[in-house]
Amino acid sequence: MHALFSNEFEFSELEERIGYTFKDKSLLKKALTHKSYAFEAGQRENYEVLEFLGDAVVGLIVSEELVKRFPDSSEGELSRMKAYLVSEDSLSMLARTVDLGSFLFLGKGDHLTGGREKSSILCDVFEALFGAIYLDGGFSKAKEVFSKCFLDRLWKRINQCTAYGDYKGLLQEVAQRKFGALPVYKVVKCEGPDHDRQFTVECRLARFKSLGVGKSKKSAEQSAAKRMLKLLEAL
Amino acid sequence: MHALFSNEFEFSELEERIGYTFKDKSLLKKALTHKSYAFEAGQRENYEVLEFLGDAVVGLIVSEELVKRFPDSSEGELSRMKAYLVSEDSLSMLARTVDLGSFLFLGKGDHLTGGREKSSILCDVFEALFGAIYLDGGFSKAKEVFSKCFLDRLWKRINQCTAYGDYKGLLQEVAQRKFGALPVYKVVKCEGPDHDRQFTVECRLARFKSLGVGKSKKSAEQSAAKRMLKLLEAL
Repeated sequence: MHALFSNEFEFSELEERIGYTFKDKSLLKKALTHKSYAFEAGQRENYEVLEFLGDAVVGLIVSEELVKRFPDSSEGELSRMKAYLVSEDSLSMLARTVDLGSFLFLGKGDHLTGGREKSSILCDVFEALFGAIYLDGGFSKAKEVFSKCFLDRLWKRINQCTAYGDYKGLLQEVAQRKFGALPVYKVVKCEGPDHDRQFTVECRLARFKSLGVGKSKKSAEQSAAKRMLKLLEAL
Repeated sequence: MHALFSNEFEFSELEERIGYTFKDKSLLKKALTHKSYAFEAGQRENYEVLEFLGDAVVGLIVSEELVKRFPDSSEGELSRMKAYLVSEDSLSMLARTVDLGSFLFLGKGDHLTGGREKSSILCDVFEALFGAIYLDGGFSKAKEVFSKCFLDRLWKRINQCTAYGDYKGLLQEVAQRKFGALPVYKVVKCEGPDHDRQFTVECRLARFKSLGVGKSKKSAEQSAAKRMLKLLEAL
Protein backbone atom coordinates (compact mmCIF):
# COMPACT_ATOMS: atom_id res chain seq x y z
CA MET A 1 0.00 0.00 0.00
CA HIS A 2 2.93 2.33 -0.58
CA ALA A 3 1.74 5.47 -2.21
CA LEU A 4 4.53 5.51 -4.75
CA PHE A 5 2.16 3.12 -6.48
CA SER A 6 -0.98 4.69 -5.11
CA ASN A 7 -4.19 4.71 -7.08
CA GLU A 8 -7.86 5.47 -6.74
CA PHE A 9 -8.42 2.32 -4.76
CA GLU A 10 -6.07 3.53 -2.07
CA PHE A 11 -7.66 6.97 -2.00
CA SER A 12 -10.94 5.31 -1.20
CA GLU A 13 -9.32 3.34 1.59
CA LEU A 14 -8.13 6.54 3.27
CA GLU A 15 -11.51 8.18 2.64
CA GLU A 16 -13.16 5.28 4.39
CA ARG A 17 -10.87 5.56 7.39
CA ILE A 18 -11.60 9.24 7.87
CA GLY A 19 -15.28 8.94 6.88
CA TYR A 20 -15.10 11.62 4.21
CA THR A 21 -15.35 11.27 0.43
CA PHE A 22 -13.68 14.01 -1.58
CA LYS A 23 -15.62 15.63 -4.42
CA ASP A 24 -12.32 16.77 -5.87
CA LYS A 25 -9.83 13.88 -5.63
CA SER A 26 -7.01 16.10 -6.88
CA LEU A 27 -7.21 18.00 -3.58
CA LEU A 28 -6.69 14.77 -1.66
CA LYS A 29 -3.81 13.85 -3.91
CA LYS A 30 -2.22 17.26 -3.40
CA ALA A 31 -2.61 16.93 0.39
CA LEU A 32 -0.69 13.64 0.26
CA THR A 33 2.10 14.84 -2.04
CA HIS A 34 5.42 15.69 -0.41
CA LYS A 35 7.62 18.12 -2.31
CA SER A 36 10.28 15.44 -2.81
CA TYR A 37 7.76 13.40 -4.83
CA ALA A 38 6.50 16.45 -6.71
CA PHE A 39 10.04 17.27 -7.74
CA GLU A 40 10.76 13.77 -9.02
CA ALA A 41 7.47 13.74 -10.91
CA GLY A 42 8.30 17.12 -12.47
CA GLN A 43 5.25 18.80 -10.99
CA ARG A 44 4.86 21.83 -8.74
CA GLU A 45 1.85 20.64 -6.77
CA ASN A 46 2.65 19.56 -3.24
CA TYR A 47 1.00 19.85 0.14
CA GLU A 48 2.77 22.96 1.44
CA VAL A 49 -0.01 25.46 0.83
CA LEU A 50 -2.70 23.06 2.08
CA GLU A 51 -0.58 22.49 5.18
CA PHE A 52 -0.51 26.25 5.83
CA LEU A 53 -4.30 26.40 5.48
CA GLY A 54 -4.92 23.20 7.44
CA ASP A 55 -2.88 24.50 10.35
CA ALA A 56 -5.48 27.27 10.74
CA VAL A 57 -8.39 24.84 10.22
CA VAL A 58 -7.17 22.48 12.93
CA GLY A 59 -6.36 25.50 15.11
CA LEU A 60 -9.93 26.74 15.01
CA ILE A 61 -11.46 23.30 15.59
CA VAL A 62 -9.23 22.69 18.62
CA SER A 63 -9.80 26.22 19.96
CA GLU A 64 -13.57 25.80 19.86
CA GLU A 65 -13.40 22.42 21.58
CA LEU A 66 -11.18 23.85 24.32
CA VAL A 67 -13.54 26.77 24.88
CA LYS A 68 -16.50 24.38 25.17
CA ARG A 69 -14.68 22.05 27.51
CA PHE A 70 -12.87 24.60 29.68
CA PRO A 71 -15.16 27.65 29.58
CA ASP A 72 -13.74 29.02 32.82
CA SER A 73 -10.09 28.86 31.84
CA SER A 74 -8.10 32.00 31.22
CA GLU A 75 -6.89 32.91 27.76
CA GLY A 76 -3.35 31.96 28.86
CA GLU A 77 -4.37 28.50 30.03
CA LEU A 78 -6.35 27.89 26.84
CA SER A 79 -3.39 28.97 24.72
CA ARG A 80 -1.05 26.61 26.57
CA MET A 81 -3.44 23.69 26.12
CA LYS A 82 -3.88 24.53 22.47
CA ALA A 83 -0.13 24.69 21.87
CA TYR A 84 0.13 21.24 23.42
CA LEU A 85 -2.75 19.76 21.41
CA VAL A 86 -1.64 21.07 18.01
CA SER A 87 2.04 20.28 18.56
CA GLU A 88 3.94 18.12 16.09
CA ASP A 89 3.98 15.37 18.65
CA SER A 90 0.24 15.45 19.07
CA LEU A 91 -0.84 15.78 15.42
CA SER A 92 1.61 13.15 14.21
CA MET A 93 0.09 10.79 16.80
CA LEU A 94 -3.36 11.46 15.27
CA ALA A 95 -1.95 10.88 11.78
CA ARG A 96 -0.64 7.49 12.91
CA THR A 97 -4.10 6.38 14.06
CA VAL A 98 -5.20 6.22 10.40
CA ASP A 99 -1.73 5.25 9.16
CA LEU A 100 -1.59 8.42 7.09
CA GLY A 101 2.10 7.85 6.31
CA SER A 102 1.33 4.83 4.17
CA PHE A 103 -0.75 6.97 1.80
CA LEU A 104 1.95 9.59 1.29
CA PHE A 105 3.47 10.34 -2.09
CA LEU A 106 7.14 10.60 -1.16
CA GLY A 107 10.26 10.96 -3.28
CA LYS A 108 12.42 7.85 -3.41
CA GLY A 109 15.12 9.32 -1.16
CA ASP A 110 12.71 10.31 1.59
CA HIS A 111 10.88 7.01 1.25
CA LEU A 112 14.09 5.10 1.79
CA THR A 113 15.14 7.19 4.79
CA GLY A 114 11.90 6.50 6.64
CA GLY A 115 10.07 9.71 5.74
CA ARG A 116 6.73 7.95 6.23
CA GLU A 117 7.47 7.58 9.92
CA LYS A 118 8.80 11.07 10.56
CA SER A 119 6.67 13.04 13.01
CA SER A 120 7.38 16.32 11.24
CA ILE A 121 6.10 14.98 7.91
CA LEU A 122 3.13 13.22 9.51
CA CYS A 123 2.12 16.41 11.30
CA ASP A 124 2.38 18.42 8.07
CA VAL A 125 0.37 15.94 6.02
CA PHE A 126 -2.27 15.74 8.76
CA GLU A 127 -2.71 19.50 8.55
CA ALA A 128 -2.68 19.36 4.74
CA LEU A 129 -5.45 16.75 4.84
CA PHE A 130 -7.62 19.15 6.84
CA GLY A 131 -6.75 22.01 4.51
CA ALA A 132 -8.00 19.83 1.66
CA ILE A 133 -11.21 18.78 3.43
CA TYR A 134 -11.86 22.44 4.24
CA LEU A 135 -11.51 23.51 0.60
CA ASP A 136 -13.50 20.52 -0.64
CA GLY A 137 -16.35 20.44 1.87
CA GLY A 138 -16.18 23.60 3.99
CA PHE A 139 -15.40 24.24 7.62
CA SER A 140 -18.30 22.26 9.06
CA LYS A 141 -17.22 19.11 7.20
CA ALA A 142 -13.66 19.50 8.44
CA LYS A 143 -14.96 19.86 11.97
CA GLU A 144 -17.19 16.82 11.58
CA VAL A 145 -14.36 14.61 10.35
CA PHE A 146 -12.06 15.83 13.10
CA SER A 147 -14.67 15.27 15.80
CA LYS A 148 -15.59 11.80 14.61
CA CYS A 149 -12.10 10.46 14.01
CA PHE A 150 -9.64 12.30 16.20
CA LEU A 151 -11.22 14.24 19.03
CA ASP A 152 -11.53 11.40 21.55
CA ARG A 153 -7.92 10.50 21.04
CA LEU A 154 -6.91 14.10 21.57
CA TRP A 155 -8.79 14.35 24.87
CA LYS A 156 -7.29 11.13 26.08
CA ARG A 157 -3.93 12.70 25.41
CA ILE A 158 -4.75 15.81 27.41
CA ASN A 159 -6.09 13.73 30.27
CA GLN A 160 -3.03 11.53 30.33
CA CYS A 161 -0.74 14.51 30.35
CA THR A 162 -0.16 15.61 33.91
CA ALA A 163 0.71 19.07 32.61
CA TYR A 164 -3.02 19.79 32.56
CA GLY A 165 -4.14 17.19 35.06
CA ASP A 166 -5.59 17.63 38.48
CA TYR A 167 -2.51 18.02 40.67
CA LYS A 168 -4.54 18.56 43.82
CA GLY A 169 -6.38 15.29 43.30
CA LEU A 170 -3.16 13.47 42.55
CA LEU A 171 -1.40 14.95 45.58
CA GLN A 172 -4.29 13.93 47.81
CA GLU A 173 -3.86 10.29 46.76
CA VAL A 174 -0.10 10.40 47.15
CA ALA A 175 -0.35 12.14 50.55
CA GLN A 176 -2.72 9.57 51.98
CA ARG A 177 -0.63 6.72 50.69
CA LYS A 178 2.70 8.10 51.88
CA PHE A 179 1.78 9.96 55.06
CA GLY A 180 -1.78 8.96 55.92
CA ALA A 181 -2.56 12.69 55.97
CA LEU A 182 -4.03 15.33 53.67
CA PRO A 183 -2.23 18.42 52.37
CA VAL A 184 -3.36 21.79 53.73
CA TYR A 185 -3.60 24.89 51.52
CA LYS A 186 -3.48 28.51 52.66
CA VAL A 187 -3.45 31.81 50.72
CA VAL A 188 -0.33 33.65 51.92
CA LYS A 189 -0.28 36.60 49.50
CA CYS A 190 -2.68 38.39 47.20
CA GLU A 191 -1.22 41.11 44.97
CA GLY A 192 -1.96 43.25 41.91
CA PRO A 193 -4.88 45.45 40.87
CA ASP A 194 -8.35 44.19 41.70
CA HIS A 195 -9.09 42.88 38.21
CA ASP A 196 -5.68 41.31 37.79
CA ARG A 197 -4.90 39.64 41.09
CA GLN A 198 -2.11 37.22 41.73
CA PHE A 199 -2.62 34.71 44.50
CA THR A 200 0.19 32.92 46.31
CA VAL A 201 -0.82 29.73 48.06
CA GLU A 202 1.20 27.66 50.49
CA CYS A 203 0.74 23.91 50.61
CA ARG A 204 1.83 21.99 53.71
CA LEU A 205 2.14 18.25 54.02
CA ALA A 206 4.01 16.50 56.85
CA ARG A 207 7.33 18.36 57.15
CA PHE A 208 7.16 19.73 53.58
CA LYS A 209 6.08 23.11 52.29
CA SER A 210 5.56 24.37 48.74
CA LEU A 211 4.33 27.61 47.18
CA GLY A 212 2.22 28.18 44.08
CA VAL A 213 1.02 31.30 42.29
CA GLY A 214 -1.94 31.85 40.01
CA LYS A 215 -4.65 34.24 38.90
CA SER A 216 -7.17 32.50 41.11
CA LYS A 217 -6.94 30.74 44.45
CA LYS A 218 -7.74 27.49 42.66
CA SER A 219 -4.97 27.77 40.08
CA ALA A 220 -2.48 28.84 42.76
CA GLU A 221 -3.43 25.73 44.73
CA GLN A 222 -2.92 23.55 41.65
CA SER A 223 0.48 25.13 41.15
CA ALA A 224 1.44 24.55 44.81
CA ALA A 225 0.25 20.93 44.55
CA LYS A 226 2.33 20.44 41.43
CA ARG A 227 5.44 21.65 43.24
CA MET A 228 4.72 19.49 46.25
CA LEU A 229 4.48 16.48 43.94
CA LYS A 230 7.91 17.40 42.52
CA LEU A 231 9.29 17.62 46.06
CA LEU A 232 7.92 14.21 46.96
CA GLU A 233 9.21 12.69 43.73
CA ALA A 234 12.70 13.86 44.66
CA LEU A 235 12.65 12.05 48.01
CA MET B 1 -21.28 57.01 23.02
CA HIS B 2 -19.07 55.75 25.82
CA ALA B 3 -19.89 52.20 26.62
CA LEU B 4 -19.85 52.80 30.35
CA PHE B 5 -23.36 54.00 29.61
CA SER B 6 -23.91 51.63 26.72
CA ASN B 7 -27.33 50.25 25.92
CA GLU B 8 -29.19 48.32 23.27
CA PHE B 9 -29.25 51.33 21.01
CA GLU B 10 -25.47 51.36 20.88
CA PHE B 11 -25.29 47.63 20.21
CA SER B 12 -27.43 48.19 17.13
CA GLU B 13 -25.11 50.97 15.99
CA LEU B 14 -22.12 48.63 16.08
CA GLU B 15 -24.17 45.87 14.44
CA GLU B 16 -24.99 48.27 11.64
CA ARG B 17 -21.36 49.20 11.14
CA ILE B 18 -20.26 45.59 10.80
CA GLY B 19 -23.39 44.52 8.93
CA TYR B 20 -24.24 41.69 11.32
CA THR B 21 -27.13 41.41 13.77
CA PHE B 22 -26.53 39.13 16.75
CA LYS B 23 -29.18 36.58 17.63
CA ASP B 24 -27.70 36.42 21.12
CA LYS B 25 -26.90 39.97 22.25
CA SER B 26 -25.23 38.67 25.39
CA LEU B 27 -22.43 37.31 23.20
CA LEU B 28 -21.84 40.75 21.73
CA LYS B 29 -21.88 42.27 25.19
CA LYS B 30 -19.36 39.69 26.41
CA ALA B 31 -17.10 40.40 23.42
CA LEU B 32 -17.06 44.08 24.36
CA THR B 33 -16.47 43.58 28.08
CA HIS B 34 -12.95 44.13 29.35
CA LYS B 35 -12.03 42.34 32.56
CA SER B 36 -11.56 45.67 34.37
CA TYR B 37 -15.26 46.42 33.76
CA ALA B 38 -16.35 42.90 34.66
CA PHE B 39 -14.52 43.19 37.95
CA GLU B 40 -16.12 46.51 38.85
CA ALA B 41 -19.53 45.16 37.92
CA GLY B 42 -18.93 42.07 40.08
CA GLN B 43 -19.32 39.68 37.17
CA ARG B 44 -17.00 37.05 35.73
CA GLU B 45 -17.96 37.41 32.10
CA ASN B 46 -15.37 39.20 30.00
CA TYR B 47 -13.98 38.86 26.50
CA GLU B 48 -10.91 36.72 27.25
CA VAL B 49 -12.29 33.38 26.11
CA LEU B 50 -13.93 34.90 23.02
CA GLU B 51 -10.62 36.57 22.21
CA PHE B 52 -8.88 33.19 22.32
CA LEU B 53 -11.49 31.73 19.99
CA GLY B 54 -11.60 34.78 17.71
CA ASP B 55 -7.85 34.66 17.24
CA ALA B 56 -8.34 31.26 15.56
CA VAL B 57 -11.36 32.47 13.57
CA VAL B 58 -9.49 35.47 12.15
CA GLY B 59 -6.47 33.24 11.61
CA LEU B 60 -8.40 30.87 9.38
CA ILE B 61 -10.12 33.65 7.43
CA VAL B 62 -6.81 35.39 6.74
CA SER B 63 -5.06 32.09 5.89
CA GLU B 64 -7.69 31.21 3.30
CA GLU B 65 -7.52 34.65 1.72
CA LEU B 66 -3.73 34.45 1.51
CA VAL B 67 -3.87 31.03 -0.11
CA LYS B 68 -6.36 32.31 -2.69
CA ARG B 69 -4.36 35.41 -3.41
CA PHE B 70 -0.86 33.94 -3.36
CA PRO B 71 -1.36 30.31 -4.44
CA ASP B 72 2.25 29.99 -5.55
CA SER B 73 3.86 31.21 -2.36
CA SER B 74 5.74 28.88 -0.10
CA GLU B 75 4.44 27.94 3.31
CA GLY B 76 7.13 30.15 4.85
CA GLU B 77 6.13 33.21 2.84
CA LEU B 78 2.46 32.67 3.63
CA SER B 79 3.26 32.35 7.34
CA ARG B 80 5.24 35.58 7.31
CA MET B 81 2.43 37.45 5.57
CA LYS B 82 -0.11 36.00 7.97
CA ALA B 83 1.92 37.03 11.01
CA TYR B 84 2.03 40.54 9.61
CA LEU B 85 -1.71 40.68 8.83
CA VAL B 86 -2.91 39.34 12.18
CA SER B 87 -0.44 41.39 14.22
CA GLU B 88 -1.66 43.69 16.99
CA ASP B 89 -0.78 46.63 14.80
CA SER B 90 -2.86 45.36 11.94
CA LEU B 91 -5.96 44.17 13.82
CA SER B 92 -6.11 47.28 16.01
CA MET B 93 -6.08 49.33 12.79
CA LEU B 94 -9.11 47.34 11.57
CA ALA B 95 -10.81 47.85 14.95
CA ARG B 96 -10.35 51.61 14.56
CA THR B 97 -12.13 51.66 11.20
CA VAL B 98 -15.41 50.91 13.02
CA ASP B 99 -14.38 52.81 16.16
CA LEU B 100 -14.67 49.61 18.16
CA GLY B 101 -13.02 51.27 21.17
CA SER B 102 -16.01 53.53 21.75
CA PHE B 103 -18.25 50.49 22.29
CA LEU B 104 -16.01 48.90 24.89
CA PHE B 105 -17.13 48.23 28.43
CA LEU B 106 -14.06 49.33 30.35
CA GLY B 107 -13.40 49.77 34.04
CA LYS B 108 -13.14 53.38 35.20
CA GLY B 109 -9.37 53.24 35.67
CA ASP B 110 -8.67 51.88 32.20
CA HIS B 111 -11.18 54.28 30.72
CA LEU B 112 -9.40 57.24 32.27
CA THR B 113 -5.96 56.06 31.17
CA GLY B 114 -6.98 55.87 27.53
CA GLY B 115 -7.72 52.12 27.36
CA ARG B 116 -10.09 52.71 24.46
CA GLU B 117 -7.19 53.83 22.30
CA LYS B 118 -4.72 51.12 23.27
CA SER B 119 -3.73 48.91 20.34
CA SER B 120 -3.41 45.84 22.55
CA ILE B 121 -6.98 46.20 23.83
CA LEU B 122 -8.36 47.06 20.38
CA CYS B 123 -6.70 44.01 18.88
CA ASP B 124 -8.09 41.76 21.63
CA VAL B 125 -11.63 43.12 21.34
CA PHE B 126 -11.50 42.80 17.55
CA GLU B 127 -10.66 39.12 17.92
CA ALA B 128 -13.32 38.72 20.62
CA LEU B 129 -15.90 40.24 18.27
CA PHE B 130 -15.10 37.56 15.70
CA GLY B 131 -15.19 34.85 18.35
CA ALA B 132 -18.69 36.06 19.19
CA ILE B 133 -19.89 36.22 15.57
CA TYR B 134 -18.52 32.69 15.08
CA LEU B 135 -20.46 31.31 18.05
CA ASP B 136 -23.58 33.25 17.12
CA GLY B 137 -23.70 32.71 13.36
CA GLY B 138 -21.07 30.13 12.44
CA PHE B 139 -17.84 30.34 10.48
CA SER B 140 -19.37 31.40 7.18
CA LYS B 141 -21.01 34.43 8.80
CA ALA B 142 -17.75 35.44 10.44
CA LYS B 143 -16.02 35.16 7.07
CA GLU B 144 -18.75 37.18 5.38
CA VAL B 145 -18.51 40.02 7.90
CA PHE B 146 -14.73 40.05 7.71
CA SER B 147 -14.73 40.07 3.93
CA LYS B 148 -17.30 42.84 3.63
CA CYS B 149 -15.92 45.16 6.29
CA PHE B 150 -12.23 44.58 6.70
CA LEU B 151 -10.62 42.65 3.87
CA ASP B 152 -10.03 45.55 1.48
CA ARG B 153 -8.36 47.52 4.22
CA LEU B 154 -6.15 44.58 5.04
CA TRP B 155 -4.99 44.18 1.43
CA LYS B 156 -4.26 47.88 1.18
CA ARG B 157 -2.07 47.42 4.19
CA ILE B 158 -0.17 44.56 2.66
CA ASN B 159 0.26 46.45 -0.58
CA GLN B 160 1.52 49.56 1.18
CA CYS B 161 3.95 47.56 3.23
CA THR B 162 7.22 47.34 1.37
CA ALA B 163 7.98 44.16 3.34
CA TYR B 164 5.93 42.30 0.74
CA GLY B 165 6.18 44.82 -2.06
CA ASP B 166 7.96 44.61 -5.34
CA TYR B 167 11.55 45.53 -4.50
CA LYS B 168 12.79 44.93 -8.03
CA GLY B 169 10.23 47.35 -9.43
CA LEU B 170 11.06 49.90 -6.79
CA LEU B 171 14.82 49.54 -7.34
CA GLN B 172 14.36 49.98 -11.07
CA GLU B 173 12.71 53.35 -10.50
CA VAL B 174 15.31 54.46 -7.99
CA ALA B 175 18.18 53.29 -10.23
CA GLN B 176 16.95 55.20 -13.25
CA ARG B 177 16.38 58.31 -11.21
CA LYS B 178 19.71 58.21 -9.39
CA PHE B 179 22.06 56.69 -11.95
CA GLY B 180 20.22 56.72 -15.29
CA ALA B 181 20.94 52.96 -15.40
CA LEU B 182 19.21 49.67 -14.63
CA PRO B 183 20.34 47.10 -12.06
CA VAL B 184 21.74 43.81 -13.37
CA TYR B 185 20.96 40.46 -11.69
CA LYS B 186 23.02 37.28 -11.91
CA VAL B 187 22.68 33.89 -10.20
CA VAL B 188 26.03 33.29 -8.49
CA LYS B 189 25.24 30.16 -6.48
CA CYS B 190 22.69 27.37 -6.47
CA GLU B 191 22.82 24.91 -3.57
CA GLY B 192 20.82 22.19 -1.80
CA PRO B 193 19.00 19.06 -2.95
CA ASP B 194 17.03 19.33 -6.16
CA HIS B 195 13.67 19.74 -4.48
CA ASP B 196 14.95 22.22 -1.92
CA ARG B 197 17.27 24.54 -3.83
CA GLN B 198 18.66 27.78 -2.52
CA PHE B 199 19.58 30.42 -5.05
CA THR B 200 22.04 33.24 -4.43
CA VAL B 201 21.68 36.20 -6.75
CA GLU B 202 24.00 39.16 -7.14
CA CYS B 203 22.63 42.56 -8.02
CA ARG B 204 24.92 45.18 -9.53
CA LEU B 205 24.15 48.84 -9.96
CA ALA B 206 26.79 51.50 -10.69
CA ARG B 207 29.63 50.80 -8.20
CA PHE B 208 27.37 48.90 -5.81
CA LYS B 209 26.84 45.21 -5.31
CA SER B 210 24.34 43.29 -3.17
CA LEU B 211 23.49 39.64 -2.65
CA GLY B 212 20.13 37.97 -2.05
CA VAL B 213 19.11 34.38 -1.35
CA GLY B 214 15.82 32.61 -1.92
CA LYS B 215 14.13 29.35 -2.86
CA SER B 216 13.65 30.59 -6.40
CA LYS B 217 15.64 32.84 -8.69
CA LYS B 218 12.83 35.37 -8.46
CA SER B 219 12.72 35.52 -4.68
CA ALA B 220 16.54 35.71 -4.52
CA GLU B 221 16.40 38.67 -6.92
CA GLN B 222 13.78 40.37 -4.76
CA SER B 223 15.98 39.82 -1.75
CA ALA B 224 19.05 41.25 -3.55
CA ALA B 225 16.98 44.26 -4.71
CA LYS B 226 15.83 44.85 -1.14
CA ARG B 227 19.42 44.93 0.07
CA MET B 228 20.48 47.23 -2.73
CA LEU B 229 17.70 49.63 -1.74
CA LYS B 230 19.03 49.56 1.83
CA LEU B 231 22.54 50.34 0.53
CA LEU B 232 21.27 53.27 -1.51
CA GLU B 233 19.22 54.57 1.41
CA ALA B 234 22.39 54.68 3.49
CA LEU B 235 24.21 56.91 1.00
